[in-house]
Amino acid sequence: MRYKPENLRHDMEEVLTKLGTLEEDAKVVSEALLRAEMRGFGSHGILRFPKLISSIEHGFQKTKTRITIERETTNSALINGNSGLGIVVAKKAMELAIEKARSNGIAAIGVHNTNHFGMAGYYAEMAARRDMIGIVMCNTEPAMAPFGGKTPILGTNPVSVAIPTKKHPVVLDTATTNIAKGRILKAKKEKKLLPEDCALDREGNPTINPEKVFSLLPLGGKNFGYKGYGLSFVIDILCGHLVNAESGKDVKGTVTLEKCTKGDLFIVINPSCFTDIDLFKSKVDRLIQDVENDGAMFPGEIEEIKEEQNRKGVEIQDEIYNEFKKVVENMV
Amino acid sequence: MRYKPENLRHDMEEVLTKLGTLEEDAKVVSEALLRAEMRGFGSHGILRFPKLISSIEHGFQKTKTRITIERETTNSALINGNSGLGIVVAKKAMELAIEKARSNGIAAIGVHNTNHFGMAGYYAEMAARRDMIGIVMCNTEPAMAPFGGKTPILGTNPVSVAIPTKKHPVVLDTATTNIAKGRILKAKKEKKLLPEDCALDREGNPTINPEKVFSLLPLGGKNFGYKGYGLSFVIDILCGHLVNAESGKDVKGTVTLEKCTKGDLFIVINPSCFTDIDLFKSKVDRLIQDVENDGAMFPGEIEEIKEEQNRKGVEIQDEIYNEFKKVVENMV
Repeated sequence: MRYKPENLRHDMEEVLTKLGTLEEDAKVVSEALLRAEMRGFGSHGILRFPKLISSIEHGFQKTKTRITIERETTNSALINGNSGLGIVVAKKAMELAIEKARSNGIAAIGVHNTNHFGMAGYYAEMAARRDMIGIVMCNTEPAMAPFGGKTPILGTNPVSVAIPTKKHPVVLDTATTNIAKGRILKAKKEKKLLPEDCALDREGNPTINPEKVFSLLPLGGKNFGYKGYGLSFVIDILCGHLVNAESGKDVKGTVTLEKCTKGDLFIVINPSCFTDIDLFKSKVDRLIQDVENDGAMFPGEIEEIKEEQNRKGVEIQDEIYNEFKKVVENMV
Repeated sequence: MRYKPENLRHDMEEVLTKLGTLEEDAKVVSEALLRAEMRGFGSHGILRFPKLISSIEHGFQKTKTRITIERETTNSALINGNSGLGIVVAKKAMELAIEKARSNGIAAIGVHNTNHFGMAGYYAEMAARRDMIGIVMCNTEPAMAPFGGKTPILGTNPVSVAIPTKKHPVVLDTATTNIAKGRILKAKKEKKLLPEDCALDREGNPTINPEKVFSLLPLGGKNFGYKGYGLSFVIDILCGHLVNAESGKDVKGTVTLEKCTKGDLFIVINPSCFTDIDLFKSKVDRLIQDVENDGAMFPGEIEEIKEEQNRKGVEIQDEIYNEFKKVVENMV
């Protein structure tokens, strides 16, 4: 079934404000989840709303989001999210990064004591919309075995990079595993097999049987996965120990119902400190033209097309929508 | 055959100083190439020395390396390498990034009008050795087709991230393609086939025949290569148009004998602006312990082992050594 974005947005805002969220923050959370859904990031979309509400009800996520800046320099800050809404904390962090990068070449904001922020690209794009380059990373609960190992130690640790252009921003938003955790759940439910080269069983052998999956293979799979593993490893530290959050096996609460120990890192580069911004944007457009002339898309293009197609109605699976609606009806 | 590192180093230094390179700069270039060779990055090692000399002789690379800082803020700079030695320019850029990051949380230095800098990890590690996190990227001549396309437009665009620990730094150093260009040449020479999922022919179909390779597949291969492609795409811009260098098809002279139009980006994060550096390093060591307990290695561990093994003698293929020796004997 297809659902009108404005209705989904309205439902989420209403539930969140009933739970004590500031109207402004409720709008941010609803928008971030809705845009993830519309851009094809279903696992960070409507599906997450019931989880978010449950996390609020269990006291792991506070609807009154107050951040504390614990350390600060002209172009960096360490933010304590005080267990606020992960999406609101992340947006505030990105705003601070943009502000600090405006008068500097680059700024970095680390965040700990926060919650799942949804789709990384949402924040990276904020920078691109203001003529800056946004880089966003976070760590997540263990899902990936280190390359050559068997045990899930690292997260799917996504990275997003958004770059301004004359038209639509380039938005790369990718996990460092070949597939997301959600794909396993989906395959289980539909009794389908997984693609090759995505997962390992408990003994560390490749498997395409979703019931046997114990860990995910890093980007690059069994032959080149040391590359994706390496990326995930450094992201785990940049978003963990660097920012006073946890890393590796101690990252919790991004999926499970418990105190969330993950961290985020927001980096913003101001192209105007390096080059002429208009020239820069025109040149990026030329590179986009080159890949399009070759029959390919720029990073973020397919998501942009999906978002456009979904403006009149977003396709959501019955099961996911019913769970969502149940939460809304219980509350409103 | 195995060759003593100190002899290789001495030969390179002698040739470079004969060509007018400052003794100090000759040492840097020799060390960077030697360490690449010892760490298993053969394509950035001794193999490159004859190419470097040829590039100097053709006037594309100046032995008197003078950099100009064209733009500067407290924590960023744009450097014109003035066609100096790529390795010397890169080292100077990284030193400036470290200096600027010391009193700030993060610094970024862009470089254009420079030459091939060898192994990215060499510079990232410089930061880690001084208790900072180093991030180094560059773009290279087109080798990868955009995901879904056929034509080489993007480079193998490597990224390196080095992180300080109590013992040895973590050093990720990876191209954004599954395999390097060098692997194709090697397979051709040895009349062997390539691994699956690494390359495309002129029609955009997968091939394992090195003679038919027209483009390299991005990290992630034919199924998940949109991820590696996305990484390569953003690196191409960060090291190209952002820093007044070229991007995409206009990147030249990293392999071929012509004016080099690539660019580099050096980012340094100062962990002390976010957390306690000793605590940070201990925690990273714990994560390393966790992956080692699982039978895996941390990023850079295998390279470190190779470097140690090569201290008494570096294995170099006859053909590569002979070409190297010819250059040395012609000059000295």
